[in-house]
Amino acid sequence: MENGAGNGVAVAAAAAWNFAPNEALLGLTALSVRGVLGRVKAGMVADGGGARAVVPMGHGDPSAFPCFRTAPEAVDAVAGALRSGEHNSYPTSVGLEPARRSIAKYLSRDLPYELSPDDIYLTSGCSQAIEIICSVLARPGANILLPRPGYLFYEARAAFNGMEARYFNLLPENDWEVDIDGVQALADDNTVAMVIVNPGNPCGNVYTYEHLAKASSDKLVAETAQKLGIFVITDEVYAHLTFGERKFVPMGVFGTVVPVFTLGSISKRWVVPGWRLGWIVTNDPNGVFQRTKVVDCMKSYLDISSDPPTFVQGAIPKLLENTKEEFFNKTVKILRETADICWEKLKGINSITCPSKPEGSMFVMVKLDLSCLQDIKDDMDFCCRLAKEELVVLLPGCAVGYKNWLRITFAIDPSSLEDGLDRLKSFCLRHNKPTK
Amino acid sequence: MENGAGNGVAVAAAAAWNFAPNEALLGLTALSVRGVLGRVKAGMVADGGGARAVVPMGHGDPSAFPCFRTAPEAVDAVAGALRSGEHNSYPTSVGLEPARRSIAKYLSRDLPYELSPDDIYLTSGCSQAIEIICSVLARPGANILLPRPGYLFYEARAAFNGMEARYFNLLPENDWEVDIDGVQALADDNTVAMVIVNPGNPCGNVYTYEHLAKASSDKLVAETAQKLGIFVITDEVYAHLTFGERKFVPMGVFGTVVPVFTLGSISKRWVVPGWRLGWIVTNDPNGVFQRTKVVDCMKSYLDISSDPPTFVQGAIPKLLENTKEEFFNKTVKILRETADICWEKLKGINSITCPSKPEGSMFVMVKLDLSCLQDIKDDMDFCCRLAKEELVVLLPGCAVGYKNWLRITFAIDPSSLEDGLDRLKSFCLRHNKPTK
Repeated sequence: MENGAGNGVAVAAAAAWNFAPNEALLGLTALSVRGVLGRVKAGMVADGGGARAVVPMGHGDPSAFPCFRTAPEAVDAVAGALRSGEHNSYPTSVGLEPARRSIAKYLSRDLPYELSPDDIYLTSGCSQAIEIICSVLARPGANILLPRPGYLFYEARAAFNGMEARYFNLLPENDWEVDIDGVQALADDNTVAMVIVNPGNPCGNVYTYEHLAKASSDKLVAETAQKLGIFVITDEVYAHLTFGERKFVPMGVFGTVVPVFTLGSISKRWVVPGWRLGWIVTNDPNGVFQRTKVVDCMKSYLDISSDPPTFVQGAIPKLLENTKEEFFNKTVKILRETADICWEKLKGINSITCPSKPEGSMFVMVKLDLSCLQDIKDDMDFCCRLAKEELVVLLPGCAVGYKNWLRITFAIDPSSLEDGLDRLKSFCLRHNKPTK
Repeated sequence: MENGAGNGVAVAAAAAWNFAPNEALLGLTALSVRGVLGRVKAGMVADGGGARAVVPMGHGDPSAFPCFRTAPEAVDAVAGALRSGEHNSYPTSVGLEPARRSIAKYLSRDLPYELSPDDIYLTSGCSQAIEIICSVLARPGANILLPRPGYLFYEARAAFNGMEARYFNLLPENDWEVDIDGVQALADDNTVAMVIVNPGNPCGNVYTYEHLAKASSDKLVAETAQKLGIFVITDEVYAHLTFGERKFVPMGVFGTVVPVFTLGSISKRWVVPGWRLGWIVTNDPNGVFQRTKVVDCMKSYLDISSDPPTFVQGAIPKLLENTKEEFFNKTVKILRETADICWEKLKGINSITCPSKPEGSMFVMVKLDLSCLQDIKDDMDFCCRLAKEELVVLLPGCAVGYKNWLRITFAIDPSSLEDGLDRLKSFCLRHNKPTK
């Protein structure tokens, strides 16, 4: 290198750089499941002999287990689109039309009206869908209502865009239903939307038609449309992953009552979170989103956003058409089995209480009774030590805004699950307070 | 639907919703190439008989043309990673380690030091890399220095994050070199970074080692490190796509002088912008980014961002290893040929001036002499009418901050290019002012 560079080394080392870290940004890691799980796993040292495997019950991602391998038709659809060479170009910012058309058709099956391709916006998984919705809805002073416990990613993206997050409760004693009075108490003229997650992450609950109708019309909207004036964002990434008595009802059913953004993806039903294909749907037959320029804002933000890969978009029509019902049934059957295992095994652990049996998604929320345990400070401490001592990874409740609870993912191979829950039990027994 | 829903319809229609559109966001479309090209093409009606095809010289995306079909080794690498079933899970937020390791190795070939996998962060194409950099660097009051003409996407993402964009000039009379005095005049204590695009978009220029050394050390940095204190962001998405005498020199060569963020992707060299795989590289052997917490901020933002598909990440090692030199040579050969065609044909159009022959990327900037033309208001008007009358799409200079110039993409099939340039000539002749 020439002389200037050589001199530069000393200069650069001594320099005062104008950059200053954005402290708010640094704090957001604490709000992400990835960030929290990173801390939980930090102290974990894999067994030297390799006798015990890590049991990953923290993330909602069972795709690594052979029993959850995706449908071969889905792989063929993507491989075909890739090999065709017809999908190497940039996509349009809203997504390829055939993909949007086929998603509209797929989702309309469960709705009392037909979606059009123009109601569908393709995203890089559901996480980008959340990013886009938060970016579009944010304005100075705006706030958004979020469920507690809930996926804090919403708060992180809202906060990053300067939008205030306010939390309403889900009621554990009532199958994690929305505390509708709480929502009304929180909402004001600056409340732009409320978020519902169904089937529930982290609670594993499934909302009934009646509860959604009540949430959307009885109190919230009939009064809301005039009084609260807030949109509904429904996170249905676990759509159709139900295995109890309650069937999945999309919130879009009530799109004529209140304008609904539905967020979804192929990540969970097809067990391919790594493929990064999601969507935002405007369930709004009355055209409120068009009239209030929400649609313009969304298109504008999409113009300056990155897109899901074109060939994955190109694969969507065949992926949706060709995947066999048996594949979905098989996944639901395993989830039913693992939810049962989880429910039964948890009953035998005295420091953990499970308020209701999970009926959907891949998770259950359980309460930690710290008074039964010695030397355990809180949920984070519990998870860090469990990871270190038993190589079992759970998500501490603080990551979903619910301190001293735990989120357990049961969507793993059944024998690994049994093993993981047995280790969890050993851990609790070992740390039990001696009875006096 | 039940009664509540029925009542709701009327209510929703009459409602006042709390949402208010973010006017700043609505304005950002004007700063995106997609947004501007959307307006250019809006009035275009495809030939009824289909006799004339649209000639797409607006976007930098030749992947639809058979002569620019990507390398079969690249397709095999991605198809193999997809079919393995090992890459269906969520990736880590910085990207898969083997992919980062192989990119570090690939880029280190052109550097006087070795990059480590920890210097590489994977992104959904270069556009998400820009989004991430702008999100990480922004803080209240901060500003960033951008080249004019340039890719306004930087301004859009900076503005969205509340960071001011300031423009320094590229000098057309001097092979589009950076006006270094201009940079110094613009910078103040709140200037966090400057952007360099090399090979140049939209100018088609390639910077010499001497110019980069001068930009980084002579004036900017030796004084800068103490006086300006700004990082360099170098957009090298067109790396190695050079076909003149000047070879590509990565800015990272000067990473010991000034900390450099290098943005890149497989989009252009492999002609697959639809695959959405890009990267941010920290070229910073002195560890300034670590010390100033830039790295922490980046990781924090990545924790709340979406990722490139896991199986595309999984394909990267084989994609980089197996792609044959002949493929790259073939692409560069066609670009040399099309740049020549463009240069020669443009000489014959009297209302258009081309200050220098392109030597890199896929573009050339040309000046429009409106005084030669009748009835044409400006560059936007020129492009809209050209699209409508001749089905030739060019990018108006306003989209790159250079009013009454045009950006021409020559990276298309050579015969289509000749056809497009002939139509451009007919258009100009038809609209020429009658000589008095």
